Amino acid sequence: MLPVVLDCMGGDHAPREAVAGAVGAVRDHDVPLILVGPARRLRTLLAEHDAAGKIPIVHTDQALEMGEGALASWRKPRSTVAIACELIKHGKAGAMVSAGSTAGVVATSAVRLKGQHGIMRPAIAVTLPTLPLPTVLLDAGATADAKPEMLLQFAMLGTAYAQILLGVPRPRVGLLSIGSEAGKGNKLVKKAHELLAASSLEFVGNLEGHDLLRGRAEVIVTDGFTGNVALKTIEGTLRVGAAELRQALTASRTAKLGAALQRKELGALSERFDSETYGGGVLLGLNGAVVIAHGSSRARGVSAACKLAYDLSRGKLVDRVKEQLGSSSKPSIFARRPHAETAGGVTPG
Amino acid sequence: MLPVVLDCMGGDHAPREAVAGAVGAVRDHDVPLILVGPARRLRTLLAEHDAAGKIPIVHTDQALEMGEGALASWRKPRSTVAIACELIKHGKAGAMVSAGSTAGVVATSAVRLKGQHGIMRPAIAVTLPTLPLPTVLLDAGATADAKPEMLLQFAMLGTAYAQILLGVPRPRVGLLSIGSEAGKGNKLVKKAHELLAASSLEFVGNLEGHDLLRGRAEVIVTDGFTGNVALKTIEGTLRVGAAELRQALTASRTAKLGAALQRKELGALSERFDSETYGGGVLLGLNGAVVIAHGSSRARGVSAACKLAYDLSRGKLVDRVKEQLGSSSKPSIFARRPHAETAGGVTPG
Repeated sequence: MLPVVLDCMGGDHAPREAVAGAVGAVRDHDVPLILVGPARRLRTLLAEHDAAGKIPIVHTDQALEMGEGALASWRKPRSTVAIACELIKHGKAGAMVSAGSTAGVVATSAVRLKGQHGIMRPAIAVTLPTLPLPTVLLDAGATADAKPEMLLQFAMLGTAYAQILLGVPRPRVGLLSIGSEAGKGNKLVKKAHELLAASSLEFVGNLEGHDLLRGRAEVIVTDGFTGNVALKTIEGTLRVGAAELRQALTASRTAKLGAALQRKELGALSERFDSETYGGGVLLGLNGAVVIAHGSSRARGVSAACKLAYDLSRGKLVDRVKEQLGSSSKPSIFARRPHAETAGGVTPG
Repeated sequence: MLPVVLDCMGGDHAPREAVAGAVGAVRDHDVPLILVGPARRLRTLLAEHDAAGKIPIVHTDQALEMGEGALASWRKPRSTVAIACELIKHGKAGAMVSAGSTAGVVATSAVRLKGQHGIMRPAIAVTLPTLPLPTVLLDAGATADAKPEMLLQFAMLGTAYAQILLGVPRPRVGLLSIGSEAGKGNKLVKKAHELLAASSLEFVGNLEGHDLLRGRAEVIVTDGFTGNVALKTIEGTLRVGAAELRQALTASRTAKLGAALQRKELGALSERFDSETYGGGVLLGLNGAVVIAHGSSRARGVSAACKLAYDLSRGKLVDRVKEQLGSSSKPSIFARRPHAETAGGVTPG
């Protein structure tokens, strides 16, 4: 199996936490890795983990800054992200991981890896901590101005991704809207609804903001603007809720005593909603899987991202997207029946 | 002062809870009211509260159904909502309250009350439970496909509303986007940012999903699609968070004991985030304030909505919007300076 290439200079705590995360990914998850960054520095850090010489390094001195946006790919042709892309392109690696600036990583890898044949725009898929299975939400910000056809393709990308991530052969796909009926939404969503209902995907119809954490579909599709707002709204609401809760639980002496009795349960809950546990976003639609870890990732987050990248590479993400494009985009022969029926999940032959 | 007119047939618990809420609004908040609905039934319900004959009733037998949408205004010319609008139009009432279907109330009142002169589209403003002041988010769903000029007008509507609701002479206005810099967002938001920066509103620049509950502006502007998704995402996240918390806090015997010690603090917190406490949405931009209470409103929610409607009527909402339209829409003489400066909150003379 091809190794995963890790950008060791992306993120707030690079390269220290990147290298620590790499060592964890190799030791705990058997992920074969290549590190990209300043060779000497990386070697020193590896030595601190007794891992000197254990993980191959490709040297470069250039790195994207955290604020760096769409022009980064031109300004820095030898950045760690650019080198990582070249390794995938030349068949030396199967997927990459970076905790660098999302805009910089998206721009550089879109230029270097190029979009998969037939895919109009890339999308970032993120994982929401729903039960019993996580939910894949996309696009979380790669394509702010989408067309209906792009939302259909995002549904295919999300389906391919969820097949690998969740092991579900036919993940249910929902469309984020502002009412559950087919006619509800803005123009973009109404048209996308028609396209999805006519596809052979497992389309379950419109879902709303309050459905995002309810596990009503394995894949929820939206444009990059709405998806980014929704994702950050969830994160912000959980953060504010947790802070207010902490304050309430320590407001009086009896409440504080109560909190002490709940330490274990509250810890497990916050673990589940902690974004580091589930890795980061994945840029889909390019000729290679690109996992974008949170900029604030520590070793644990980097390890999880490397494992995810390896799973996607082994699961042949790019090939699965190709299959989806081949099969789902053709309107089925049932394309003209009323939405309600298609939405029920009947699989046209 | 003109009374508030209450649609007694809207909502899941009409007319019982509507009448109970009306009695509460009169007794506890001195709100002068007119009730609209089936006179005989309303009289019987009023009698149960020892309030027979204390609140005037305008009779009609027609009511909008909860599922009723945009066509309602044509199908039911004598619905409670239509009658309430006529009372405002003829100067018999200053504002109205309904817990009926949002689509039906919006459609009926837009047709009957008409948009204020110069306002392109109405917007629904909702109140988020931030500290120290609540935050007004609009549009929460009246105008799903907005143009940049409409977002500018929503900012004016929100400013007028926040002036009355919060008593702040120059409320800060933020634009919901997917990055804090001026160039971030979709096409709609980028153009709206320019218009807002050139206006004389107290524009503080872009805000993101995670800022919604952080009280960083008194008014946050967005299109009706994004706003509706964001609002429902907050509600859904709080609901899921609370449910998971409840489960965690009762998962073991010690945790359960802990929860008992915190009853008071948890109660106060959930009260703050309970949507019934802060009334519902307000439809802005028409010739009269229309308060849309939650469909699930009980007496307490109806009372709060009546008080809000009365405050808006007394605060001369419609006149304040007119003022905003007159002053803010003219690009200031500083219109051409860089965004960063305007965004800093400098007030042009």
